[in-house]
This record gives sequence, structure tokens and C-alpha cells, in this order.
Amino acid sequence: MNFTIPPLDNSLNDALQQKIDNKTKPRGSLGVLEKVALHVGRIQHSLSPRFAHPYNLIFAADHGAARAGLSAYPQDVTWQMVENFLAGGAGANVFANQHGLSIKVVDAGVAHDFGQRDDLIDAKIAPGGTRSYLDEPAMTREQCVAAIEKGAEVVRGLAAEGCNVLVVGEVGIGNTASASLLTHVFTRTPLVDCVGRGTGLNDAGLARKRALLAQAVERAKLPVNADPVTVLAEFGGFEIAMMAGALLAGAECRMTLLIDGFIATSALLAASRIAPNIREYCIFCHRSAEPGHQAQVRDLGGEPLLDLGLRLGEGTGASIAYPLVCSALAFLNDMASFDSAGVSTIIN
Amino acid sequence: MNFTIPPLDNSLNDALQQKIDNKTKPRGSLGVLEKVALHVGRIQHSLSPRFAHPYNLIFAADHGAARAGLSAYPQDVTWQMVENFLAGGAGANVFANQHGLSIKVVDAGVAHDFGQRDDLIDAKIAPGGTRSYLDEPAMTREQCVAAIEKGAEVVRGLAAEGCNVLVVGEVGIGNTASASLLTHVFTRTPLVDCVGRGTGLNDAGLARKRALLAQAVERAKLPVNADPVTVLAEFGGFEIAMMAGALLAGAECRMTLLIDGFIATSALLAASRIAPNIREYCIFCHRSAEPGHQAQVRDLGGEPLLDLGLRLGEGTGASIAYPLVCSALAFLNDMASFDSAGVSTIIN
Repeated sequence: MNFTIPPLDNSLNDALQQKIDNKTKPRGSLGVLEKVALHVGRIQHSLSPRFAHPYNLIFAADHGAARAGLSAYPQDVTWQMVENFLAGGAGANVFANQHGLSIKVVDAGVAHDFGQRDDLIDAKIAPGGTRSYLDEPAMTREQCVAAIEKGAEVVRGLAAEGCNVLVVGEVGIGNTASASLLTHVFTRTPLVDCVGRGTGLNDAGLARKRALLAQAVERAKLPVNADPVTVLAEFGGFEIAMMAGALLAGAECRMTLLIDGFIATSALLAASRIAPNIREYCIFCHRSAEPGHQAQVRDLGGEPLLDLGLRLGEGTGASIAYPLVCSALAFLNDMASFDSAGVSTIIN
Repeated sequence: MNFTIPPLDNSLNDALQQKIDNKTKPRGSLGVLEKVALHVGRIQHSLSPRFAHPYNLIFAADHGAARAGLSAYPQDVTWQMVENFLAGGAGANVFANQHGLSIKVVDAGVAHDFGQRDDLIDAKIAPGGTRSYLDEPAMTREQCVAAIEKGAEVVRGLAAEGCNVLVVGEVGIGNTASASLLTHVFTRTPLVDCVGRGTGLNDAGLARKRALLAQAVERAKLPVNADPVTVLAEFGGFEIAMMAGALLAGAECRMTLLIDGFIATSALLAASRIAPNIREYCIFCHRSAEPGHQAQVRDLGGEPLLDLGLRLGEGTGASIAYPLVCSALAFLNDMASFDSAGVSTIIN
């Protein structure tokens, strides 16, 4: 498990900024889109960056701890939603169809036998999902490393197809709980501020989730300087570990990484502890309604494009934001310059 | 000049909400998109609203007051940008191409002779643009009414083609100054809070703009209860008056009105004083970087979808937000329900 992610260099910054400033518009008038255009130009090391073969790669897994009642939905919803993705009926499918993203689903450890299926990659780390971190570490170190490497392998395959822009999404009943624990440990934010209602717990359910997660933290007794693989293995989520590997490989392949909400950002937190430069390849697509997302974004220095109260997961927030990112590339590539259009420039 | 705009009725609200809640996602998890879906369903009076023939209708005009030096750009930029639109090189063109919007440009009074041109509607109210409100009313009452009626006529033509979703955009050197005056009068916000840098004035330019606009307010001495046509005629902008008429006719035709930034919202302010129910047909697409936009949005009770620091005009902010609005319709129309997908529902 070794990822080489260089920082972005600054050699094209001036030329990109000049190209942006020569477009027929008041300087700076496209606001954040101008920053995004510069950013993707730096990632692709090009004055004319283009996206190709965009993917929403959805990782699915079950969580041992979910059986203790951490979610508003029964655990079966994990496999049922995988079937929904494969049938094209989920939110992720609708937005992918709208914007020309391809979807593949990666079974990182769903407690269900899907058999051979189109667009489903069998990558089960354990057939029944993780163990319960309420009792013991969610996975072994070997399982965690295997998950990270498998996620990376899948993304290297997409890169070989020509994909250079990636959403990683997820489904897994109980995975906001796992993300809350990871966020607490990685960012040292008080646990209570990292735990939200997930798919829609009522007040009693939220209180129960908070109490159970506090017990898990107490049981695990992780040292303050625990390495990221230890933390991921402890509080798991096979899908989260696999997403971390996917993001790491994506940055290594110089993909633009479109970061979704709370679960995806928990994977990015772990990835950023393995290779901090990964952050430079990321566009934070939206501000999740799940409260712990604030601590994640603050830690990573992100500025989300959208703030629409989304909390669906599946990569939907990043998929919805994708056309905005494309707008940034479109103006950079396709707008006329003052010279080419014969428009007078500023006088003051 | 007579517009009949009924309030939206609530008869489909429950059925729309039920359809939204039965989609395979946690209840409320698509946040603002769920509100947009409900809203457009109510506008179209349909459980399956669809957009057809989307347009960005760009109104262009010159401003007498601009010759006093209210803008960072020379007045010739108005006609040069019209040429840029017709050649397909402006920001508005790029985003319209990206999202399948058609563009037509309406010459409401540009100080330039374009001749007969494809996609340019000659609707000049006066060949040289408005008079300077620094010295006298920008237009006569008859000119103002003619502009409103012409804007309405153009939009009724689009409705006859099947258009049911409309962006109104604009270009006109000096038009942020006009919008500032209208915003000050209509919302009673202190003038200083309504005036910004427009296309990019420096500090000295901004101070000069503020001083000139304060003189204009002093000269005009409008009574507190001046009717909206009087206010529009005083501080003008042929393009702004025409946009007000366009929006009014759009609501009358039950179009979904995608509201752009500071200039477009100043037209909506005027329109809302003529027919207050128009607000129910509007989606506020973005929060402009021009400071006076805050007072407008507050007055009209809007909640903009995007906050990206945009201040380009031309309908670009609304064009960029259009795919988000389409995402709302896409999930409402195309996502599976819990029943249809065989997904278990909530347990708590």
C-alpha cells in the first residue's frame, strides 16, 4: 500500500489566470467558477482542461454495528438499494443519466449474494460485512489494507479507460455512524458534534446512537497518534476504506476528485492522513446537512460549491454539482476573449 | 398594460409531497431540491412537471447616465457584447449551449444600428437609449409602458412556441446604477447599501457612482408612494422595463421564472409592484456579489440556490443554476418509489 501523490505545481497559474482574465466578462465576475477553472487546469496541467469518462463509483457494504439499531432503516436496505442502482431507479442513477456520468457499483461487503451482475464489481472483503465496533475492531488490519488496495485497483482500471473525473459514492445502512467515529478521531472534534440523524433518526434514536458511539470510543481506547489504517480498521466500513483507496488512486492518476457529503468526506479524511497532498485534487461539491460534515470540511480546508441541505449519499450531491464544475471548464475553453470578440476593455 | 397573475393554488400540494416522500431516499434528504420539485409542480399544476423550450432572453439597452462615467467600461461595450452574443462567444452563449437553452437578444434601445440579424429582435424604444436620470427622467411614461408591453409581447411569442421556463438576462453599460436606484426606491434600503462596483469600479469610481446616484435621487424627488411605472420611467433602463414586462407575461403564461442577479431582480421588484403574485412563479437562482442584491432578495422573500460570487449578468447565473432545477424535476419524475423498487421503509 503505497501512494505517490505530488503537490500540484504552480507553473501554469499565471497563464491560466491570464486566459481567465481575457474572457469577455468583467474580471472576477464568474466568482468561484474562475477558481474552479484554475484549479482543474492545475490538476490536468493544461490551459484547456477537459473532462472525460466521468464516473460515479458507488461502494456498498454492511456494518456489524448496524444490527444494534443505529439507523432508521433495516439493514436489508443496503442490498435492496444495490438492486435499485442496478435497475437504474435510485437518485444516483437519475442524476448520472442527467449529466452523462457512468455508474458502477462495488460490493465491498454487503450481506447478500448478488451473483454475477452487469455493472456490479464483486469485491467483498467479508461476506457478512464488518464486525461490530461496539464489541471489537470492525475489521482486521489485513482486511483494511485489502479494502484500500481494492478501491485503488478499481480506480486504476477506470483511469485506463480514460476516466479523469471521479465521484465516489456509497450505500451502507449504519455508515453515518462509522463516519461519525472516524471524524471524531481524525479531527478531534467532540463526538456529540460528529453524530447526526443519518437517514432520519428521531430524537430517541439519535440519543441512542450517540450513547452507543460513545461506548465504542471508550471500548477502542485508540491512542491519540493511532495511524490511519488502525483507525479505519477499528471503526470500519469496508465501503469507506475502499473509497479511501479509490480517492488515493484517483489523485495518483491526476483525476479531479468530486467530493460528496459526510461518508465520502470521512473516506477523504482517512486518505488525507495517508497522503496529505490528495486534498489538492479535490473539489468539495456540497455542504451536507449531516452536522459532522462541518468539522470534516473545516479540517480539510474545503469550500463546498453547493449548500442545499442534501443528505442522501450515493454520490448524489457531487453528481448534482458536476454541471457547475463543467461550466467552469466550458467558459475557460469556449468563451471569446476581448481581442477575439472586438470588445473594449476596462477604463478605470 | 394589464396582467392577470393568480396565486398558485394548493390543491396538488399533498399529492406532490406524497410522491416526493415515496421516492427511494430518506425523507427530506434531497433538501432544497425537494422544495423546488414541489414548487414547479405547483406552477405547472402537475405531478409530473416538465420543462420545454427553455430560453435565455437577453435584453440590451444603453443608459444616458452612463455617459457621466458610472461604469468601469465604455458605453460601446453594450453593442459590442450584443455582437458577441450573436457570434456565440459570450458567457451566456457558453452556458446556454451547455444546458440546451435557446438565446434571443432583444434590442430595447442600444445606441447602435445592427440592421436585420438572426436571433436579434429589434424593439428599440429610442434609438440612442434612455436620457440621463442625472438631469431628467430616463424615459417618458409612454416609453416605459411601451417597453413593458413589448417585453410581454416577446414572451407571449415564446409561450406560443411551447416555452415554459424562462431566464431573462441583460446587458447595458451603466445598468447596475439604474438597478441601484430602483432597489433603493422600491425597497427603501439606504442608497449606499444598494450601490456596488458593477463591472469593476475602483474605490474612486465607486465613490463617484454613489455621489452621482445620490444627486439623481435628490433631483427626482419621487413621492414615497410613487407608482411602479413612474419609478421605472424615472430611473429607467429600457432593458429593465422590458424585462419587467417579460417576467409579468411569463408568470401570466404559467412559466417557471428563473431569476438571475442584480439587474434581473430589479426588474422583478418593479414587476412585483405591478402584480405581487408574480413572486410565486420565481426561483431565485443565485446570490449576486453585487451588494444591493441582498436587499432585493430580502424584500421578495427569495432563497437563492447558488452563492458563488457571480456578477456577470446576461442571465448567466440563472443559466448555470438551470441543471439544478432540472435535477429536481428529474428525481420527481424518474426515481423509483419504495414500492416499485422493493426497498424497505423507515422503522423508527
